[in-house]
Amino acid sequence: MFSYNIIGTGAVGGYYGGRLSQSGRDVRFLARSDADEIRKHGLIVDSVKGDFILPEVPVFTSAAGMPAADVVVVSTKSTGNARLPEILEPLVSPGTIVLMLQNGLGMEEELAVRFPEAIVVGGMCFICAQKRKPARISHLDYGEITFAAFDPRGEAVLEALKKDFEESLVPITLAASLGAARWRKLLWNIPYNGMSVILGADTKTMMDDPSSRAIIRRLMEEVAQGAASCGFRFDEGAVDKMLAYTDGMKPYEPSMKLDFDYGRPMEIEYMYRNPIAEAKKRGCELPAVSMLADLLEFRQRRANADRNAPA
Amino acid sequence: MFSYNIIGTGAVGGYYGGRLSQSGRDVRFLARSDADEIRKHGLIVDSVKGDFILPEVPVFTSAAGMPAADVVVVSTKSTGNARLPEILEPLVSPGTIVLMLQNGLGMEEELAVRFPEAIVVGGMCFICAQKRKPARISHLDYGEITFAAFDPRGEAVLEALKKDFEESLVPITLAASLGAARWRKLLWNIPYNGMSVILGADTKTMMDDPSSRAIIRRLMEEVAQGAASCGFRFDEGAVDKMLAYTDGMKPYEPSMKLDFDYGRPMEIEYMYRNPIAEAKKRGCELPAVSMLADLLEFRQRRANADRNAPA
Repeated sequence: MFSYNIIGTGAVGGYYGGRLSQSGRDVRFLARSDADEIRKHGLIVDSVKGDFILPEVPVFTSAAGMPAADVVVVSTKSTGNARLPEILEPLVSPGTIVLMLQNGLGMEEELAVRFPEAIVVGGMCFICAQKRKPARISHLDYGEITFAAFDPRGEAVLEALKKDFEESLVPITLAASLGAARWRKLLWNIPYNGMSVILGADTKTMMDDPSSRAIIRRLMEEVAQGAASCGFRFDEGAVDKMLAYTDGMKPYEPSMKLDFDYGRPMEIEYMYRNPIAEAKKRGCELPAVSMLADLLEFRQRRANADRNAPA
Repeated sequence: MFSYNIIGTGAVGGYYGGRLSQSGRDVRFLARSDADEIRKHGLIVDSVKGDFILPEVPVFTSAAGMPAADVVVVSTKSTGNARLPEILEPLVSPGTIVLMLQNGLGMEEELAVRFPEAIVVGGMCFICAQKRKPARISHLDYGEITFAAFDPRGEAVLEALKKDFEESLVPITLAASLGAARWRKLLWNIPYNGMSVILGADTKTMMDDPSSRAIIRRLMEEVAQGAASCGFRFDEGAVDKMLAYTDGMKPYEPSMKLDFDYGRPMEIEYMYRNPIAEAKKRGCELPAVSMLADLLEFRQRRANADRNAPA
């Protein structure tokens, strides 16, 4: 049984950290704006798998004050990754497991370069959860995570990590290749996240319209090409299967749409620019994905300009 | 000196028909909603080249009632072209010149097939004009037209047409190839019209942002490829020149953005689908242009759905 430092108490960190804590693991949270609220009223989780409250959870506002833990769970948005080394510095010593619960591509590589003494593991979360109020998490659907190790040192800890999470009601799949698992997640994330922002629409609206559906298919086909260029070839029917899977989902607003609607920065770098760059290094252009990334950057920049405009 | 039947008294038909009438040509207008207003108060043109009013202009609400004219000027939006044969039927006899003042590609071909007895001429208008109120045209900038004949019969009438327009304060350029001239116009229309709708932005805003500028460049490069596939190769620096030209323009909202903002249908078929189809026939895919067309069709369909929703 590991001990855990959870970096970022949003929907992802709050839910999974909460589950680990609820099952008896030693879990502490790093929070910023929510810290006071958590101290006053505890961390509240409304979950389709059962609501719970953690009335007295250890919460910190600075990483420097946190006791060492076996596992550091990074559940911040990747938009803040420039500051991540500074946050992790006091928490990582030789053999510390760093579990990256982020969307996109390339964050494990960056981390492994900066902290060669850490054991880096990637986690692809399939969860529908939101933090609508401080210290109050809504877990609406799904919840499973796919773990994949960055290198052989990580492979040695996967089973123990899996056990901790599964005993905390979180289903875990272990993947042999981090790259394959990350690209597999991008097959969904790249089309639906960006398009939901550009079109202001949920998954069902986009799947029901033939024109947006055509774009989503094209984006998926390009992601599959990008993955293949990096050595990760999906099965023949992967795109059709992902479309059918999304057809079967309840109408869903992807996280990037929520970020945009709430005025938060969008994860364009790790979710779009890194995959585009990795494919390009292998001579594979992703024109539709690139156009979508450009559209998103335009929208991001305009949103920033509007926010900073004098009232 | 020709006589003219103007089909469609919007910004384009109202301005050019008004100029031809003002210079003493025999000009009649086909109008629908504006007819009463024109009869009551005349046709009012506020123009950067000088305001004028035509107090007693002949206006008709049905083509069947119009006297024959040498030239039929089609200045309706291409979104209504399905009904065009029915409107032109009573106005076209052998040798009637039909001047197509529309944006897009392929309308002259359709017309020539339907009315082989007509002399078909294309007109590419470079004008900034709007109809803000019934029977009141605002001509804000530019105004020149490029004429190009659909076949040799048209070439024989170009000089006479040019004379009529130039004596009416409308600068005319004659182009040797209708296809080349239409694609040249698309080099501007395809990127700026669609993108202004998707981004809700004017030309300057899109040119000043590096991401939207990158998309516009890419769209132009594809249009140049499409044109080349159809046998119309632009000069080496055509894309750079068009970007520089737009940099030099005052901030401008393209006609498609005005159509969308005012709840009118957008000219997606002739401006996007026809060029995409023509290029595709020659084995040339236009992926960014296709994605933009799909985005526009989604927006068009949603706008229609919103308008038809019960209040």
